[in-house]
Amino acid sequence: MSLIAPISPIAVVLLSGGQDSVTCLYWAKQRFEQVHALTIDYGQRHRIELEAAETISQLAQIQSHKVLTLESLGQLGGSSLTDSIPLEESARNGLPNSFVPGRNLLFLTLAAAYAYQLNCHDLVGGMCQTDYSGYPDCRRDTLDALESAISLGMNWTTTIHTPLMFLTKAETVHLAQEVGAMEALRWSHTCYEGKRPPCGICPACRLRAKGFAEAGVEDPLLQP
Amino acid sequence: MSLIAPISPIAVVLLSGGQDSVTCLYWAKQRFEQVHALTIDYGQRHRIELEAAETISQLAQIQSHKVLTLESLGQLGGSSLTDSIPLEESARNGLPNSFVPGRNLLFLTLAAAYAYQLNCHDLVGGMCQTDYSGYPDCRRDTLDALESAISLGMNWTTTIHTPLMFLTKAETVHLAQEVGAMEALRWSHTCYEGKRPPCGICPACRLRAKGFAEAGVEDPLLQP
Repeated sequence: MSLIAPISPIAVVLLSGGQDSVTCLYWAKQRFEQVHALTIDYGQRHRIELEAAETISQLAQIQSHKVLTLESLGQLGGSSLTDSIPLEESARNGLPNSFVPGRNLLFLTLAAAYAYQLNCHDLVGGMCQTDYSGYPDCRRDTLDALESAISLGMNWTTTIHTPLMFLTKAETVHLAQEVGAMEALRWSHTCYEGKRPPCGICPACRLRAKGFAEAGVEDPLLQP
Repeated sequence: MSLIAPISPIAVVLLSGGQDSVTCLYWAKQRFEQVHALTIDYGQRHRIELEAAETISQLAQIQSHKVLTLESLGQLGGSSLTDSIPLEESARNGLPNSFVPGRNLLFLTLAAAYAYQLNCHDLVGGMCQTDYSGYPDCRRDTLDALESAISLGMNWTTTIHTPLMFLTKAETVHLAQEVGAMEALRWSHTCYEGKRPPCGICPACRLRAKGFAEAGVEDPLLQP
C-alpha cells in the first residue's frame, strides 16, 4: 500500500459516491498527504448518491468532506439526471440525454476554487474517456484545456488528475483492489434508478456488472 | 445604429447590471438578431445589482432575461464581494480580496450551458484586461483556454466575445454612446457599497468617474 510515495501534500477529490470516484478517492489517499473530498449537490434525482459520498468519506478517514450546491444545473433543466425525462428517450448533438452540458467543467472549476482556498494545486476526478456514454467533458483533451483555463484564470497552477481516464471498467476494478477501495465500494452508488440494492438492469448497473465480470471479481455492493 | 450587420442569429450576454455588461448588452443588440441576457445570482452582498439587470433587460427589449443561482461561491466564502470582509483589507496570491477564484470561469461555463440549450454559439461578456483590479480570469488568454474547454467539453463550438477587453474606461464610455447604451447606463449599478445614488468614493465609483471624466462625457447615472 505504501509503495507509491506521496507526490504532493494536498488533493481535492470530486466524490459523487459512485464506483469511479470512490476508487479515485482511495487512489488519492495513497499519493497525497491530505485528501479533501468535494461533492456537488446539483439536484440529483437520487439523494442516495449524496449519502453514499458522506458514508464513504467517513469510512476513508480523509481530512474533510464538503458539499457545494449547484442549483443552476437543475434550473437549466433538460437532462434525465436532474429531470424526470425518461433515460435514453431523446438525444441531441449525438449525445445521450443524461448529458448535462458542461457538468464536469463546472464541477472541476468549483473544485479548483475550493482547492485554491485550501492552498491545494491538485484535483482528482473519475472521468473516463472509455466510458460508454461518450460525454465530451470526460475526455482528456477537454480537461487539458480546462486545466489551462483554471491555471490562467486563478493564477494558480492546477493539475487535474484522472487516474481512470484510459482504463477499461475491468481495469478500474483491479485498480480499486490495488488501492484498497473494495470495502468502500460496498457503500458506493451506481444505479440510475436510485435503488439499493441496485436495479441491475439500468445502463449504469449493467456497465458496472460488466466491469466486475470481466475483472473476475465479485462486486462488494452485491455481497449479502 | 444599423450600420453594423448582424453577424449571427443568437447571443447570450452575461449581464451583471454594471456599466460594462450593460454596454456589452447594447453592443450585442447591434450584432445579433436575438439577445438573451443571463444574470448569475451568487449571493451578491447588494441585491440592487440584480434589480438593475432586470430593469435594463426590460428597457433594452431583448428576447429574455434569465437568472441562475450559484450558491457555491458564497459557500466557499473568502471574498469581499460575497462576505462582509472589508474591501482591500487582505490580499493573497497578489490579488485584491474582491477576487472570487474562478468566478468568471464559472459564469461563462454556466452561460455556455444555457446557450447550448438555446442553440446558441455566442457568448458576450464585459471582461476587460485593462481593468484596474487585474483579475486573471478577465484576461483574454484565460478566455481563449476556456473557449477551447467549453467547445470541446460540450461538443459545441462556442465563442466568447469580449468587446471591452482592450479598451480603456474612456473608450468604453465612447462605445456605450456608439451602441446606444447611454439611457440604460442611467439604471446600471457600479458602487461596491451598494448605494444609489453611488457613494462616489469606493474604488468602483472612482474608476467609473475617471472613465467618464477622461471621455469628457457626463455619467447618466449622476444626472438628476
